[in-house]
Amino acid sequence: MDQAQARSWLATAVEEARTGLAEGGIPIGAALYGPDGTLLGRGHNRRVQDGDPTMHAETAAFRSAGRQRSYRGTTMVTTLSPCWYCCGLVRQFGISRVVIGEATTFRGGHDWLARHGVEIVLLDDPESIELMRGFVIERPELWREDIGDRDG
Amino acid sequence: MDQAQARSWLATAVEEARTGLAEGGIPIGAALYGPDGTLLGRGHNRRVQDGDPTMHAETAAFRSAGRQRSYRGTTMVTTLSPCWYCCGLVRQFGISRVVIGEATTFRGGHDWLARHGVEIVLLDDPESIELMRGFVIERPELWREDIGDRDG
Repeated sequence: MDQAQARSWLATAVEEARTGLAEGGIPIGAALYGPDGTLLGRGHNRRVQDGDPTMHAETAAFRSAGRQRSYRGTTMVTTLSPCWYCCGLVRQFGISRVVIGEATTFRGGHDWLARHGVEIVLLDDPESIELMRGFVIERPELWREDIGDRDG
Repeated sequence: MDQAQARSWLATAVEEARTGLAEGGIPIGAALYGPDGTLLGRGHNRRVQDGDPTMHAETAAFRSAGRQRSYRGTTMVTTLSPCWYCCGLVRQFGISRVVIGEATTFRGGHDWLARHGVEIVLLDDPESIELMRGFVIERPELWREDIGDRDG
């Protein structure tokens, strides 16, 4: 896909991440775009805000889009490489493409998605990296909790 | 694990599935048990009831357990073989074991979980099968929507 378009969509996810940070939460944001570029849903991690461990940024955006008959042609945009939970969501529901802000601070399962036919657009976005880097340094325990890191 | 224990835990998930059916929802239930056998959370699919496509039975049970520091030694019990979304949840958070009521009406990604070290206990529970079979016959479109079956 067009890089300018990917970066423009990523801005929505970054805005969500910043909102999450301002709320005292984990700064990861996401958005789901339809095949025609319509914004279907957007959200951010809500573990801290709602005490809800199922609300990763991607699942929050997916939930915000409500019930959809098909996800064919949709794009999940996320500030951070998706964990296995969110990769499973993408694969199960047949989301066609994932735009990722960064995979430097955490590398999830996006190679697995690529092997299963999902188009992956990996950006190297300084804002996404800065948001996560600051958070991981300041709140390492919270971050490990969010990804179920038992050895942390 | 002990089969009698697995069947006793499955009864909680079946009860959840029956509650979901009575509410007009998709009859899949789940429960999360701690290493010591404590019931940590339970829930059922809530797509119809809440218009929330993220609430599969397993994610509903996981959410109901609230924030946990570790899932080591926990068991996810579900009436139906978990889809990729729910398998991703199990793998990401390090849930140790999955007890499955049946994999006859739908076979999800539990072999993948087994390959990644999760203990899989596959029962062949007549109640779980009967609940799903009736539902899939009566509401095929709703079922396909719930698993993102685009070709349905």
